[in-house]
Amino acid sequence: MAKFTRRQFLGTSIGGGALLIGGDATAQDTTRAKSAARTRADVCIVGAGYAGLAAAWRLKKAGASVIVLEARTRVGGRTWTMNMKGGGWIDLGGQWVGGSQKRYLALIEEMGAKTYPSPDGGKTLYLGITEPGYFAVTNEKEYDYPGGNLTKVAYDKLDELADKVNPEAPWNYPGAEEYDSNTFAEWLRKNIENENARRAVGGLVSSVACASPEEISTLHMLFLIKACDGLKAIKNDAQELRLIGGTQPVAKKVADRLGAAVKTGQPVRRIEWNAGGVKVHADRMTVEARHAIIAVPPNLAGAIEYDPALPTDRMQVTQRWPQGLVIKVQMVFSEPFWREDKRQLNGASLDYLALVGETADSGVPEEYSKAGILTGFIYSAQARKVAPLPAEERKKIVLQEIAKRFGPKALNPVNYHELNWTTQQWSRGCFTGFLTPGATVLFRSAVRDPSGPLHWAGTETATIWPSFIDGAIRSGERAADEVIKAKG
Amino acid sequence: MAKFTRRQFLGTSIGGGALLIGGDATAQDTTRAKSAARTRADVCIVGAGYAGLAAAWRLKKAGASVIVLEARTRVGGRTWTMNMKGGGWIDLGGQWVGGSQKRYLALIEEMGAKTYPSPDGGKTLYLGITEPGYFAVTNEKEYDYPGGNLTKVAYDKLDELADKVNPEAPWNYPGAEEYDSNTFAEWLRKNIENENARRAVGGLVSSVACASPEEISTLHMLFLIKACDGLKAIKNDAQELRLIGGTQPVAKKVADRLGAAVKTGQPVRRIEWNAGGVKVHADRMTVEARHAIIAVPPNLAGAIEYDPALPTDRMQVTQRWPQGLVIKVQMVFSEPFWREDKRQLNGASLDYLALVGETADSGVPEEYSKAGILTGFIYSAQARKVAPLPAEERKKIVLQEIAKRFGPKALNPVNYHELNWTTQQWSRGCFTGFLTPGATVLFRSAVRDPSGPLHWAGTETATIWPSFIDGAIRSGERAADEVIKAKG
Repeated sequence: MAKFTRRQFLGTSIGGGALLIGGDATAQDTTRAKSAARTRADVCIVGAGYAGLAAAWRLKKAGASVIVLEARTRVGGRTWTMNMKGGGWIDLGGQWVGGSQKRYLALIEEMGAKTYPSPDGGKTLYLGITEPGYFAVTNEKEYDYPGGNLTKVAYDKLDELADKVNPEAPWNYPGAEEYDSNTFAEWLRKNIENENARRAVGGLVSSVACASPEEISTLHMLFLIKACDGLKAIKNDAQELRLIGGTQPVAKKVADRLGAAVKTGQPVRRIEWNAGGVKVHADRMTVEARHAIIAVPPNLAGAIEYDPALPTDRMQVTQRWPQGLVIKVQMVFSEPFWREDKRQLNGASLDYLALVGETADSGVPEEYSKAGILTGFIYSAQARKVAPLPAEERKKIVLQEIAKRFGPKALNPVNYHELNWTTQQWSRGCFTGFLTPGATVLFRSAVRDPSGPLHWAGTETATIWPSFIDGAIRSGERAADEVIKAKG
Repeated sequence: MAKFTRRQFLGTSIGGGALLIGGDATAQDTTRAKSAARTRADVCIVGAGYAGLAAAWRLKKAGASVIVLEARTRVGGRTWTMNMKGGGWIDLGGQWVGGSQKRYLALIEEMGAKTYPSPDGGKTLYLGITEPGYFAVTNEKEYDYPGGNLTKVAYDKLDELADKVNPEAPWNYPGAEEYDSNTFAEWLRKNIENENARRAVGGLVSSVACASPEEISTLHMLFLIKACDGLKAIKNDAQELRLIGGTQPVAKKVADRLGAAVKTGQPVRRIEWNAGGVKVHADRMTVEARHAIIAVPPNLAGAIEYDPALPTDRMQVTQRWPQGLVIKVQMVFSEPFWREDKRQLNGASLDYLALVGETADSGVPEEYSKAGILTGFIYSAQARKVAPLPAEERKKIVLQEIAKRFGPKALNPVNYHELNWTTQQWSRGCFTGFLTPGATVLFRSAVRDPSGPLHWAGTETATIWPSFIDGAIRSGERAADEVIKAKG
């Protein structure tokens, strides 16, 4: 495994870019051959995240030859795991699994990986819901905070509204035009009078799409809720389990089984296509194939040059599908001191007015490391504000916020990692892309319809667990099935 | 001047792409040297539309050396003029000038080009405002149609609301957060009870941004109205004049004065940058420069790979700035028969329920051609619906609609041209990019702030006449001034 160079860690720090501070981690990375070549396969897959790898793996098992072109020098896309010195790991990207995420659980099993229960039990901190400085220690599931009852009422209403969405065709929802031409902020204003509840429910947009209620379509929110099995599943079940060794290694295991078919360091710039096939041009390689599966975020899929140009609706919809904005912080402490707090804390906290919108305990089983690991999420407008600051200054503000919640021990992490996913050129944002208002009703099935030999994957195109790793896998498998069914 | 090959005309017809039928036109095109090279200049400009050319021209006059890299094999960007056999011309893209578009008028004069008054006088047809099939012959300026008075009331209200917008900083507008998190469709629902008036006012979004009310921010609409000098200017003055010879030739004249500095057929894929300068990688050329001016639509600016990645807010805002969707049709008849109609028609028509949302008389002065030329615009949702049809079928539907308005002579054009700008890989839509809900308030001055040595131009970044050619020129000149002031 190649170590990342310092330049790769710090290369994008201009303008508040990606940054990792701390030296307890080595990147789990794979650098493959970069030789120029012209090659042929049944299917060329663009992107070696979970979606692209799942597509390639299914195709390979079906007997097709594949080439996977990955722009980065590593596989795993929006998962990226660092091993800690002395044991343990942190996930800088996607990190949980659970609930009804059955395709991910199946792939984990197939690759011989193991899960463990996320640290749980204890109480969640609710802050700043009423006003800056408000502080409650609650059992989250009992909505035991000011506005909590009304929040529950709103959640139930959303679940009820979402229940009628067909995730395969949300544009057919009754009243779709009005729901899609309302932002979620407007829905909140119209439907929730209580400010605390409005803020708490608005926070959903952060934790699902790393977006702000002001920019996301209400219909798209209902789609996400329904496709992810309802709010209870999104808020609880989806974080139930973690992976021993982290999430990226499972992607790496799939890549290992694909062997030399996976080419890293190959950004795709241009795709020629017609009814007969594709010619995919990467920086140092051209692949001719019968089909292509483009398994990158919609915005990046749209950034490729297509010759001829994509069909109108597809060309347009990729322009209305931005990535969310999040800085993920991983703080490593000598021990999980919050668990010893007399308030019986579980490391989870929510503050819709603060920089760090959410925290979670990301500890690993004791046999791997006794370290305490706290994850913090800085979302959307908050991330935009602090992104330009020098990294050390941002770190200071973050730790001060964490200390307010969990006590002064939080000021002294052993190591501190952060990743601003927007500065990752080949992701341009995380967790996911979301559809802007109007786009669902205007462009409909262009979100997923193949364009001749071009097939679209990526978690954004999933109809079950979109925005999660499970959705990525399902989208890749669905695209592979399209190719297999096309038989030619 | 190189003739376009048939492949270039028809190359994108798969999936309802760009298409030109008819043989009376030759493209005004310039194919320059395509040799591989590594070169150096003070400033590298990406894009040889009006914005990039205006930037280069101002810089050259200020004594700077420039290289302009253009992806297409022609200059002019979203302007594209065809000469008709036997005289006359049609503009497949931007075609008008007038009102307070002073920078465009100045450039026209500087390049020795001439304007002429758009054919005017006579009456406009209003159709389908009340219900499908409704038909009125009116004087547009008198709002002499059902719902006309209420339309005028709504226009006045919008002008009044827009008047308080500072186009340099619309995010500071009173109530900006609420206006930006409402789509214009929602504003229409809340503010205009009368259905006819609501539809007529909603039509503004088409004619300004080729978008649907369901997808555009109300604050952004107010910004566009104010920046373009109010609704009267947008609806009337901006179409006052046309150019003898069409709009693209003025761009070509600027390019001619820049000479060998303009390199066509050079799509830019990657830009390395730091505080000291830029290295701009096109397909067959790398330019090292102190500054770069990226003068392409925001979505395309975002499609380039930047190393390091762009600052967070800039990377994100380009993902929330889609291009509009329009198919522009130019129908050439042996004579302008509508002018002889006893209803005294001026060739203008509006129908918010039909495929062809608007028409206009695009005739040229008689000494050039006696042909009658009608322009038709197919906007947004309507364009999305017909884009996948075979071109001949679409043509038939269009002509049938035109015949309903102007009589059976419309069924037999001498020539028929259409251009679906979305299928133009290096535009991806027209007339302009628009900001989706929430983006203005979330990302603020990232729409225009330079990122180190990277400067942003293109009509979308203009604060006066954005979405028009005048705005493009102003944006290029503003970016040039940024570079000149930076002095280094």
